[in-house]
Order: sequence, then structure tokens, then C-alpha cells
Amino acid sequence: MTFTLWFMGRPAAGKSTIAKRVENLVNERGIRTENLDGDEIRKNLHPDLGFTKEDRELNNRRTAFICRLLNRNGIGVVTGMITPFRDSQEKVREIIEPENDFVLIYVKCSVEACAERDPKNLYEQAREGEIKNFTGINHPFQEPHNPDIVVDTEQQAVEESVVYVENRLEEMDVLAGDAEGEYAFDINRTEEQDIKERLSEEGYLNDD
Amino acid sequence: MTFTLWFMGRPAAGKSTIAKRVENLVNERGIRTENLDGDEIRKNLHPDLGFTKEDRELNNRRTAFICRLLNRNGIGVVTGMITPFRDSQEKVREIIEPENDFVLIYVKCSVEACAERDPKNLYEQAREGEIKNFTGINHPFQEPHNPDIVVDTEQQAVEESVVYVENRLEEMDVLAGDAEGEYAFDINRTEEQDIKERLSEEGYLNDD
Repeated sequence: MTFTLWFMGRPAAGKSTIAKRVENLVNERGIRTENLDGDEIRKNLHPDLGFTKEDRELNNRRTAFICRLLNRNGIGVVTGMITPFRDSQEKVREIIEPENDFVLIYVKCSVEACAERDPKNLYEQAREGEIKNFTGINHPFQEPHNPDIVVDTEQQAVEESVVYVENRLEEMDVLAGDAEGEYAFDINRTEEQDIKERLSEEGYLNDD
Repeated sequence: MTFTLWFMGRPAAGKSTIAKRVENLVNERGIRTENLDGDEIRKNLHPDLGFTKEDRELNNRRTAFICRLLNRNGIGVVTGMITPFRDSQEKVREIIEPENDFVLIYVKCSVEACAERDPKNLYEQAREGEIKNFTGINHPFQEPHNPDIVVDTEQQAVEESVVYVENRLEEMDVLAGDAEGEYAFDINRTEEQDIKERLSEEGYLNDD
């Protein structure tokens, strides 16, 4: 049993910054993690995907599937994705949670504050219509109903948010597995694995 | 450093059977592996993909990307994919090999012998035109130029092929990593990882 830490929030809310700092703290405990970044996923898995609702949802679901694959091999995952739609926020949990800890961390920041930071002038470009489907300007952002952790980067300093996330992960016992060797590879396959293998055998002619 | 064992060959050539037996032997050495099966990849990553040349190549490339992700976390991968196009056979190697051992295992069997086995009457249906794009009947199959290992399931018994693959893997030193702890997670990121992270930071606003 291991975990996926899924940082969600608007562009420029601070997802990547906080995720990276939290990941460092987790690694310092000797717990291995993979940082799945959206750009790499897009580039390698589906360079054709755009930023429509359907494409964003597909991107989220595919990323969740990869989180699950890594998790079931004992690799914790840290990822930052806008995840603007509530359906996706729930769907990615459904994909990962049955077997592993899924932690939805909402990096909260108002659209006004994000637009004020706007390190690459993207909010401004979106307002002027130069970028389409830009979250928060001309594309929806739905706040999550059931985040496990919320940090408010408009009110808190980065370090404060990072420490808060770490403390909450401890309280939730998400980081406890390693000490007891729970992250070690379990050679005994689970029932799901058996089902998967049976399906694979039955359908092996279509495997490519 | 770990490995991807990529079993390729015609439908009904025996890829899954031999891959599963080889994987069991690898696991018995205490080396963890993930069995990536084509059906699971298709169902979860791209249920929309068909069996045209382009779709098969995309399926192969995406699977290779997932192999790379698992490999860089110390997880060996075993997969069976028809991989009918030479371009793909070379492309998947390019994706995986720079960092880890990529072993292309050609499970060789003539189309006549495969069609004779035909456990699910698929060859027959393809001949009658009921299945389109069926490898070897109405869709190409290109033998690999540079397989690392070849087993001939028309001439050899299954057990013979399995033992041969295991011996070749030993000779190639592919299974040697674990004993020396090479498969342990390396907390020091590679240069590629650093580049990836920098790219991610530069493009983080498009991460979803």
C-alpha cells in the first residue's frame, strides 16, 4: 500500500512549488516517489490532446491510471494537475483509491490573486482572447467537494503550506507504510491482478 | 538500472505463455516485475484506439513510455505485444534503452502454424473477411531486424523456449542487477530527471 498525492488548483496557484517541497520531505524519510508532471505525460502519451473539457478529463484519467500502475508496484506518486472538473476529481480518486491512498490536495488561490502573480502573462493573454480554454478566465474551474487537504496560498507563505501538508499526511497515516515495510513488493498477486491476467489470457489475440 | 522484456510475435505465436513462465522464473529470483498486458493498456489508456498501422504504433509507443516510467523506478517490466511494424520495434527500443536494458524477444512461429493452432478461430474469421486488420492475414507482420533473443515455438516445446530465454538473459547479464542492489531506488535524480523538472517548471501553466 502506497500513495498518490494529487495537487490540484488553478494555474499559478502554486501546485508545482508546494508539491516539489512536500516531495522532498517525503524522500528525506526514505520513501521513494515518482513525480509525474503534466507536460511529460502530455508529450509522451498524447501530444494530440488539447485543453477542451473532454481532453482535460482524458488527460486526468490516463494520469490516474499511471499513478495506479506505479502505486501497485510500491512507488508513491506526486503529481500536480489543474483538474478543473469535479467529475475528474472524483474519477481519479475512484481509479486509485481502492488499492492505495489517494490524497487530493487543493492548492487554493483566487483567480484574482493568481492573475496578479501571472508569471508568464498567461492570464493577461487569456483575457485578451489570445489563449482559449484558459482555466479561470475562459474555461471553468470547479472547486473540489471533497479535498483531503486544503492549503490557501493567498493567505499562507509557501513554507507554512508545506509544513501543513506534511502534518496532515502524518495525521492521515499516509506516510506510515514504509517504516513497517508495507511498501515492499508483494509477490503475492491480488485478486484484481488475477482477474486482469485471466482477461488478458482470454483476449491475448487483441493485445497489440 | 532494470529491464523491459518485450515479447513480440504473431497472434497465437505463444508470447503470453512464454512471457508468463519467464516472468515467474524472474520473480523467483526475488526480482520484482510488472506484467503490462495489452488489453489493460488499451482499456485504460485509449479505448478508442483501433488496429490500423497508426493506432498500433501509438499503442506500442505509449506502452514503451509506461515501461520507461516503471523502469526508472526500479520495476522490471514484462510485456507481450504483437509489435508488427519494424519502425515500432526500433522506436520502443529507443524509448527504453538509453536508461535501462531493453530486450526484444521474438517469439517466432509461421503464419501457417499459428493459424493451425488458432484457439479462437480468429485466423479463420480473418480469412473469411470477418475481422479486418488481422496481423498476418490482412495486415502486415514484419519480422524484426535486431531481436536480442529468438525462440521458435514451431520447433521448440514451451519449456525449451522458456529455459532458452532465461539462459540468454543470464548471459546478457540482464538479471544481475538485483543481487548487487542495483535495482534499489536511487534518490539521486539523473540528468534527464533534472531536465524534465526544469521543463515542467517552465511550462507548468499548461500542466493539465
